[in-house]
Amino acid sequence: MVRRPRADILRPRCLDDLRSPVEEELNRWLGTEDEIEPALAKAMRYSVFSGGKRVRPVLALLACRVVSGHFEAALPAACAVEMIHTYSLIHDDLPCMDDDDMRRGKPTTHRVFGEAVAVLAGDALQALAFEILSDRRSGYTPEQGLRMVNELAWACGSTGMVGGQVLDIGGEVGEPELLDRLHAMKTGALFQASMRLGAIAGGGDAASVKALTEYGKEFGLAFQIADDVLDVVGDPEKTGRYAGSDVQGGRSTYPLLVGMTQSHAMAREAVERGLRALGLFNGRTGDLQELMEYVIRREG
Amino acid sequence: MVRRPRADILRPRCLDDLRSPVEEELNRWLGTEDEIEPALAKAMRYSVFSGGKRVRPVLALLACRVVSGHFEAALPAACAVEMIHTYSLIHDDLPCMDDDDMRRGKPTTHRVFGEAVAVLAGDALQALAFEILSDRRSGYTPEQGLRMVNELAWACGSTGMVGGQVLDIGGEVGEPELLDRLHAMKTGALFQASMRLGAIAGGGDAASVKALTEYGKEFGLAFQIADDVLDVVGDPEKTGRYAGSDVQGGRSTYPLLVGMTQSHAMAREAVERGLRALGLFNGRTGDLQELMEYVIRREG
Repeated sequence: MVRRPRADILRPRCLDDLRSPVEEELNRWLGTEDEIEPALAKAMRYSVFSGGKRVRPVLALLACRVVSGHFEAALPAACAVEMIHTYSLIHDDLPCMDDDDMRRGKPTTHRVFGEAVAVLAGDALQALAFEILSDRRSGYTPEQGLRMVNELAWACGSTGMVGGQVLDIGGEVGEPELLDRLHAMKTGALFQASMRLGAIAGGGDAASVKALTEYGKEFGLAFQIADDVLDVVGDPEKTGRYAGSDVQGGRSTYPLLVGMTQSHAMAREAVERGLRALGLFNGRTGDLQELMEYVIRREG
Repeated sequence: MVRRPRADILRPRCLDDLRSPVEEELNRWLGTEDEIEPALAKAMRYSVFSGGKRVRPVLALLACRVVSGHFEAALPAACAVEMIHTYSLIHDDLPCMDDDDMRRGKPTTHRVFGEAVAVLAGDALQALAFEILSDRRSGYTPEQGLRMVNELAWACGSTGMVGGQVLDIGGEVGEPELLDRLHAMKTGALFQASMRLGAIAGGGDAASVKALTEYGKEFGLAFQIADDVLDVVGDPEKTGRYAGSDVQGGRSTYPLLVGMTQSHAMAREAVERGLRALGLFNGRTGDLQELMEYVIRREG
């Protein structure tokens, strides 16, 4: 009997099963070199297809499936979220921000296409996210579509992701509470939006949307603590970055502020709270449970 | 009798009359330092309130008034367009793009707040545009709101403004036809969107939206040719930039490609075509006519 490598055992099957539908849908929405400026088309595609795990779109599909029994209706919404996530990575990597040359083992967008095209590819991906949600082909009712636009804009703008990024570059964060707030905005808001958009696409009622939002919030927190822990103990071959790069970059992390033991405990508590929020759905939540457990066990 | 200075005579009254309602509305939508990260709030406000003429929002209000008799319904849409325009200026001015230190006689956003915050303020303004269109307080029906989101996303993304900017930085444009295409995308698309969003806000029918779109297209072309001409003959005190800065920057311009006489003729023809498109409205278009004439006579 061939023993599967440990990473495979840990990795939830949904991340593999839902990857193809997500990537086919991403491909459909991205312009080709015949349709838009070739340099722009290349930079957008390079950035979107650079080996991400597609955690956010998969969350959106799972949220949709929990409330409706199928995931297909959430595909456009899932892609909109991934476009936003990708644009944020391009801009975060810029020389004036984190100045990263590599991401997921590949040269960053500005290293390949130059800074100007990288800024613009990010800008175009943000616009594309809203184009997708408002496109008739996505199949959303005007009410659904406009609500998704509002939720996503709120999650990715000054009140969410971008606001958190400004807080992050603003200097050292000395209080765990402030670090919670930073991450709730910088990464948590988009995880929550993934869940909410997926639930809305599936026609979920208010109670379902609320429960899935709660899951998304705790998922985001657990994800970030695990990320900080990986920065200290992770294998650079699996994380795709140098060990200790956060701390060396002057960034506040959970291990730095509260220590490793307390960081592990906090992540575990977030996971428990997130799993409890799924109680509403009477056991149709196996994939969401697996994904939540994976987030604090992953190695990269 | 006191003689009004020439600039006053040329300047259409609507630009002054509608300025206050536009700026009050912009102020309402922009977050305060209590609500969002202070550095971000400051950078967003500095950029939005840096002395722009508000041509795009005024176009939106006029389009609304032509089809409905009032302009108020277009105020949120007008602000959404201005947020997009402002974000594009911030990103255009970045060192990796045009590297401009000054705009409208004031230091550019990245000179005041640093590059990272400038990138992020632009990103947040783009998100804010879509937040405004999808906010209940804007008073649009879901159908109107979602249509506006789609039109604006199309106009400002890879198929419009950002696509044109990539074409622009891609190198010298040797053919007048390619220059037309560049400007149709880079500036024309947003002028058209201003007219279309205004008309949709006012509940205009398909024929009205089409005619106003045509006006917006010709307005954009005339605006751009006049801009290129001003670069050659303009008074730096009034244009707020050095004479010849486009040509020195290696940028293709209409005077460079077709000469001054032909540039003037092309602008005049665009104006005539734009004015003809207003025929549908039986004389309720005085302000749009004045604005169109102004665009090729302005001095800055």
